[in-house]
Amino acid sequence: MASYFPVVCISFVLILVALASDPNPLQDFCVSIPNSPVMVNGFACKDPKLVQANDFLFSGLHLAGNTSNAVGSRVTPVSVAQILGLNTLGISLARLDYASWGLNPPHTHPRATEILTILECTLLVGFVTSNPKNRLLTKVLQKGDNAVAIAALSSQNPGVMTIRNAAFGSKPAIASDILAKAFQVDGNIINQIQSRF
Amino acid sequence: MASYFPVVCISFVLILVALASDPNPLQDFCVSIPNSPVMVNGFACKDPKLVQANDFLFSGLHLAGNTSNAVGSRVTPVSVAQILGLNTLGISLARLDYASWGLNPPHTHPRATEILTILECTLLVGFVTSNPKNRLLTKVLQKGDNAVAIAALSSQNPGVMTIRNAAFGSKPAIASDILAKAFQVDGNIINQIQSRF
Amino acid sequence: MASYFPVVCISFVLILVALASDPNPLQDFCVSIPNSPVMVNGFACKDPKLVQANDFLFSGLHLAGNTSNAVGSRVTPVSVAQILGLNTLGISLARLDYASWGLNPPHTHPRATEILTILECTLLVGFVTSNPKNRLLTKVLQKGDNAVAIAALSSQNPGVMTIRNAAFGSKPAIASDILAKAFQVDGNIINQIQSRF
Amino acid sequence: MASYFPVVCISFVLILVALASDPNPLQDFCVSIPNSPVMVNGFACKDPKLVQANDFLFSGLHLAGNTSNAVGSRVTPVSVAQILGLNTLGISLARLDYASWGLNPPHTHPRATEILTILECTLLVGFVTSNPKNRLLTKVLQKGDNAVAIAALSSQNPGVMTIRNAAFGSKPAIASDILAKAFQVDGNIINQIQSRF
Amino acid sequence: MASYFPVVCISFVLILVALASDPNPLQDFCVSIPNSPVMVNGFACKDPKLVQANDFLFSGLHLAGNTSNAVGSRVTPVSVAQILGLNTLGISLARLDYASWGLNPPHTHPRATEILTILECTLLVGFVTSNPKNRLLTKVLQKGDNAVAIAALSSQNPGVMTIRNAAFGSKPAIASDILAKAFQVDGNIINQIQSRF
Amino acid sequence: MASYFPVVCISFVLILVALASDPNPLQDFCVSIPNSPVMVNGFACKDPKLVQANDFLFSGLHLAGNTSNAVGSRVTPVSVAQILGLNTLGISLARLDYASWGLNPPHTHPRATEILTILECTLLVGFVTSNPKNRLLTKVLQKGDNAVAIAALSSQNPGVMTIRNAAFGSKPAIASDILAKAFQVDGNIINQIQSRF
Repeated sequence: MASYFPVVCISFVLILVALASDPNPLQDFCVSIPNSPVMVNGFACKDPKLVQANDFLFSGLHLAGNTSNAVGSRVTPVSVAQILGLNTLGISLARLDYASWGLNPPHTHPRATEILTILECTLLVGFVTSNPKNRLLTKVLQKGDNAVAIAALSSQNPGVMTIRNAAFGSKPAIASDILAKAFQVDGNIINQIQSRF
Repeated sequence: MASYFPVVCISFVLILVALASDPNPLQDFCVSIPNSPVMVNGFACKDPKLVQANDFLFSGLHLAGNTSNAVGSRVTPVSVAQILGLNTLGISLARLDYASWGLNPPHTHPRATEILTILECTLLVGFVTSNPKNRLLTKVLQKGDNAVAIAALSSQNPGVMTIRNAAFGSKPAIASDILAKAFQVDGNIINQIQSRF
Repeated sequence: MASYFPVVCISFVLILVALASDPNPLQDFCVSIPNSPVMVNGFACKDPKLVQANDFLFSGLHLAGNTSNAVGSRVTPVSVAQILGLNTLGISLARLDYASWGLNPPHTHPRATEILTILECTLLVGFVTSNPKNRLLTKVLQKGDNAVAIAALSSQNPGVMTIRNAAFGSKPAIASDILAKAFQVDGNIINQIQSRF
Repeated sequence: MASYFPVVCISFVLILVALASDPNPLQDFCVSIPNSPVMVNGFACKDPKLVQANDFLFSGLHLAGNTSNAVGSRVTPVSVAQILGLNTLGISLARLDYASWGLNPPHTHPRATEILTILECTLLVGFVTSNPKNRLLTKVLQKGDNAVAIAALSSQNPGVMTIRNAAFGSKPAIASDILAKAFQVDGNIINQIQSRF
Repeated sequence: MASYFPVVCISFVLILVALASDPNPLQDFCVSIPNSPVMVNGFACKDPKLVQANDFLFSGLHLAGNTSNAVGSRVTPVSVAQILGLNTLGISLARLDYASWGLNPPHTHPRATEILTILECTLLVGFVTSNPKNRLLTKVLQKGDNAVAIAALSSQNPGVMTIRNAAFGSKPAIASDILAKAFQVDGNIINQIQSRF
Repeated sequence: MASYFPVVCISFVLILVALASDPNPLQDFCVSIPNSPVMVNGFACKDPKLVQANDFLFSGLHLAGNTSNAVGSRVTPVSVAQILGLNTLGISLARLDYASWGLNPPHTHPRATEILTILECTLLVGFVTSNPKNRLLTKVLQKGDNAVAIAALSSQNPGVMTIRNAAFGSKPAIASDILAKAFQVDGNIINQIQSRF
């Protein structure tokens, strides 16, 4: 058991820092109604008298995520979409699985700070700061084969923006000449990146 | 690897709900200075130009906590006191170790919501709601021997108040006749509880 | 008239500190609809054009609370359940009546800070801090017979958790062997306390 | 004792609504240092190990305020300037004394919502809403001679802006032709009002 | 083009400081539904799948406001009532037009801080502080004829309270003897001011 | 003058949404001290008695930004670094100048929402949402030559992360094989992009 948590690291996970937290709730809980006809900031709530322990439970986190994909990693989120009881409570989790040499691509969480703990293996974690400008801070965390990590996020609905997908895979696509100028490369490089989607 | 996380449960961990989150920070980070002569809300910060990756790292979480104590459990916190870089970031973690039949006594976190994921074994988790009044919600989580869990908390400094210690073990002690009336028992019962400290 | 307010004291009222405040509102007022079919964080609002001065008024606070009970005290809350106009406004009051030697049992407010002013008589007020750990701070406030106090709380819905009730009087009850271990006493002591409910 | 609190009313006390609350604190308490050489948002804190119960106490609220002045009222604030322990805690009180026909002039609290409870006598309380535009809501509260009230405010430092003083008594004064146009009256009326300072 | 922005100034715009910001949102956007039967803090939201770019657009800000009125100024707000997509986002704008010698009368924003930039001409801007008490800070900004300015406010719905209108033009009116005492002038002066409405 | 503001648009300016606002201040103002030896969340404050109107003023915004650079645009920020008085006030501005076909590269503000108004010419503005995933919303705003815009941001220190610079221009650089996998392109494409720095 001694080898479970070699290190804990605050990780904005390779690139962008987004620092926020949800506002305080106004009652003990406000368990969300998934398909409520009324939509509000966060979610409308179930009658508190009908709330059950299961509203605060998610049972799928023991299953390893499928990492057979181009980047060799999988994020299994446990936020308000998975645990309805998280609505208004300002916190969530995620399980991260990495194949050998897998990668969680550069991303940002627009509504949360992230803290990460490694359960198994090696992980290179890092983040880029906005001030000092574009400074990269990294750490290599423990050797091994595959990696499993738990991330905690200070929002019920942290959101995620993977930079490659937002910049090169949006619908509709951003015009390639705009991206060519933004990234200061030839348009055919942009076309190559966009063609992978 | 498939057996690591049998369930995830929001747990206010047997008793008291305390719902809050830290306010947003005003910069990327404000790494705390441990013994600053100037004390402020949270902590005074290190010069950001001197910040290192190690300011965001804690390496002791792989060590199992010593559970050879009366309640058979140990909490290893990873909050702003352990990771100086957590100052102003509004999140923290804790490792929970339980011996067989161990117990994390009823407590509350005055400044945070808690979410809990079980890494090994069985755990009975529960919390009491304030509205509906004093309703107990519980779940038994997976069988096994010892238990390891990770708790995430929506504050850099969640605080903890163990009810037994606050009520019966404060310094100075609360007068036993006051506690006898508060708990509606004979004073000698209070004396028995207080004498264990 | 000179004798009305002998002292004012911030009191977390004998035990647990819970420090929070409601988020800012997004309009002048959002008077709650008591039995709205739509439930949201806080409460759904009445049409602002239909709001009346009475929505901001509560007239029962001149009545002394009935203190003929086991603890010799009574709390009369004036929160969003009593004044519908308090919804989103982040503040509430309570009247506290004490019989001679009455006691407001150890409790916590999960969503509010409390400030207390004594209108009549003597009151011993105190609170236990979480850091420094379990330090008790107390003051004896003015001599007299019965006591009346006003508490202000920084939430429209501060909530209250009376420790004895949450620990020993929940429904369903927490198993007595769990409580025996948590409070480090014999199970029959727990049974005695639970039998008073 | 039955006659102490005839009514409770949320009062923004004759004119302007200002709706805010302080952000959550990052520790149990941060008792302010009155003349700290370092000034920060709120106040720098005393070492928590040196904190005493007296830091949370104010003893002058039993004294009636002197209402022998032009408006016949007196506000005795109990905010962070009077109770150093209120720093970061987001709440404060005030005692209001009124002579017969006394008046607390139109004002606003830039950082707090106010709730008011009348302890004695009659009080006409009211506030003007910003939306619906400039609607006056009032209530006459209980007959009597002099009035005493307690106001609670959702900030450690609510601030107060008395409209007459801010508009007509600032230093330096606002030019009378500006005020004449702003209030749509002859300049000599403005001069009359300004000359009372 | 070099002459567009002679200066930028934080202006609470002649009188009252009100310092607040909206709480963080819980999703990317929550575009308001203008006449939703369900009213909540802020506004109920449109289905995010139906959101269009036009929900975030307001096209009328190129039109000069009509300044042919008693004070010679016009405020064109661009808040959540004009851009439905601003709901929960905590920011808004306003265009200010001034005729020669026009004036934006003393006012306060109960839910926002304001920052102002002058696009053309001269403007005397100022604000009165609450602490130090009633200190007037002013600046004269650039010479010219008419003035155009952009104000940004830290709320989706900042609200505005023009002091003259709130004090002298409410419905129903505040009794003139109350205002006479509050402003320390003869009742006939109050009557003169009230008669202009 | 009628042609100054053709449209107003909330723009997160081509890519990433980051939604937050600064917490409320605890006093009227807390003018920052630029090189204070004590560093805190935000900035330490100047003695309020020494505050001057100039502490709230920035005079350089009339100067067009130099757009002779690779992307043909220039951002002139007016945040707490330029106006010391903005500290704790939760708002800031920026002037944006664009050469013909100039571009403000994809970026995110980690601590603020942005609202944009165009003063002159044409601008294509857009943003990508995180939920619905990676949906691009755009608008073409008015024809012309060069463009000038004012952006308001809901933070005193919004921060900015230009994606190209953070991903490809950090110090030290992120290893090119990591970026190649993250962006799913050949390593030599990454090398080309990195070589432009």
